[in-house]
Amino acid sequence: MELLSSTKSFGGWLKRYCHESLSVKGEMTFAIFLPPQAETQSVPVLYWLSGLTCTDENFMQKAGAFRKAAELGLAIVCPDTSPRGTDYPNEHESYDFGSGAGFYVNATVAPYSNTYHMYDYVVQELPTVVEENFPVTDKRSISGHSMGGHGALICALKNPGVYQSVSAFAPIVNPTDCPWGEKAFTGYLGEDRATWKAWDATCLIESLGENAKERLPLLIDQGEADNFLVEQLKPEALEAACEKAGHAITLRRQAGYDHSYFFIASFIDEHLEHHSKALS
Amino acid sequence: MELLSSTKSFGGWLKRYCHESLSVKGEMTFAIFLPPQAETQSVPVLYWLSGLTCTDENFMQKAGAFRKAAELGLAIVCPDTSPRGTDYPNEHESYDFGSGAGFYVNATVAPYSNTYHMYDYVVQELPTVVEENFPVTDKRSISGHSMGGHGALICALKNPGVYQSVSAFAPIVNPTDCPWGEKAFTGYLGEDRATWKAWDATCLIESLGENAKERLPLLIDQGEADNFLVEQLKPEALEAACEKAGHAITLRRQAGYDHSYFFIASFIDEHLEHHSKALS
Repeated sequence: MELLSSTKSFGGWLKRYCHESLSVKGEMTFAIFLPPQAETQSVPVLYWLSGLTCTDENFMQKAGAFRKAAELGLAIVCPDTSPRGTDYPNEHESYDFGSGAGFYVNATVAPYSNTYHMYDYVVQELPTVVEENFPVTDKRSISGHSMGGHGALICALKNPGVYQSVSAFAPIVNPTDCPWGEKAFTGYLGEDRATWKAWDATCLIESLGENAKERLPLLIDQGEADNFLVEQLKPEALEAACEKAGHAITLRRQAGYDHSYFFIASFIDEHLEHHSKALS
Repeated sequence: MELLSSTKSFGGWLKRYCHESLSVKGEMTFAIFLPPQAETQSVPVLYWLSGLTCTDENFMQKAGAFRKAAELGLAIVCPDTSPRGTDYPNEHESYDFGSGAGFYVNATVAPYSNTYHMYDYVVQELPTVVEENFPVTDKRSISGHSMGGHGALICALKNPGVYQSVSAFAPIVNPTDCPWGEKAFTGYLGEDRATWKAWDATCLIESLGENAKERLPLLIDQGEADNFLVEQLKPEALEAACEKAGHAITLRRQAGYDHSYFFIASFIDEHLEHHSKALS
């Protein structure tokens, strides 16, 4: 691991690293905020997955999360949103596919199948790297925004017991049924839509049956003035699936808020408290 | 005035506008955060002046100030850091002179003397625009970072009674005696260094004599790991001038903190409380 920068904030430290990833067969960058408590004890970790076009930096710079994380003694880890070292056809052409838009799946379509294994990176490799190198416990929670909200939901749903809690801001809850998801899943997973369901939070809940009742409750904030609400995000699809399956969900529709980090900042403290409670 | 964007955050609204400025003879952009209290009453205003290369956006996106401002009922106004509509020789060549580096002076050297009147804009025109168009009182405080900390200090020192309080993060306290200041003042004010003293916080305090004791106390936070501390910022110069003149100053040297917004975010709540107390 190479340390890229180290910055003090709220008595803790924001550190950025790059390292060689086996999952994506190339260099990955991530950021970790270590609260002041980490100087004397191991602290639990919240993984944050960012949205389309983001890197490890957006959340750390704009969410205003460190004050509360420092108070709660919570580390925050932000991975990048895709591998970066390749140059496949069309990889860098659009904001919603390829670099910056890895969608937290394991791609099965060439050439992306060679390196776009963001799911394995986020669920397995990165936590191992973090737990081996920093003063953290093995207690993990996960959250994210938009594409990263989708990522947080599927990571938690596909790995019962691995995360203590999950939440999301304006997540893409049903990627098999929206333009962003259909474009990404076609490119990464191919034309067979049956294979997509394993990467869709709404479909995953539909498939749980009786097990749904035992799973982690979902905490979701969704701005009602979000430009992507109707066409891309569709929280009502997840809400209906949860209701049918008996899966616990708290979906808060926040009047007047849009899709930006100004929305995330407004409610991040409550999410951090939600995760801290589950982690302690 | 043209509304560029309107974004809800912490129950208040961040709005960006552009307008034709008489002071700088061209279009200027500014941002205002209106706390929730502004929907039913007039609120006081904190003016924030940003540093080199910044626009109206940096503070609003990265300082994490809205939570506390919404709690205190404080509006925050961020101007841009220079005029933008011109194309003078060398105006856009360097990060520390010309566009993005107006230094909050009234330039006297051609061609900058034609439009670079950031002092008049910040002290007179912008507050008039703000007080005519938004639900705010005429109570003003001022703060800023680096070049903007210099700006906040000189605006307060040159206008007794206009601001209720002043503070700064890592300000350029003695621009007549550091490379950034010498470059900017030569370009905007000319070779006669005697004219520079009217735009230098340390020199202004030295010139106050007995009046120093009656002026606003200065609140300054300075990171001790700031890369610009020794060569550019030199808070000890201001501290010595204050001590000699009997001018009240609280200079807090913060161990481990650098020059970034992660430093500002760590202490902005305390500055907002300082200003709110003076404004109420």
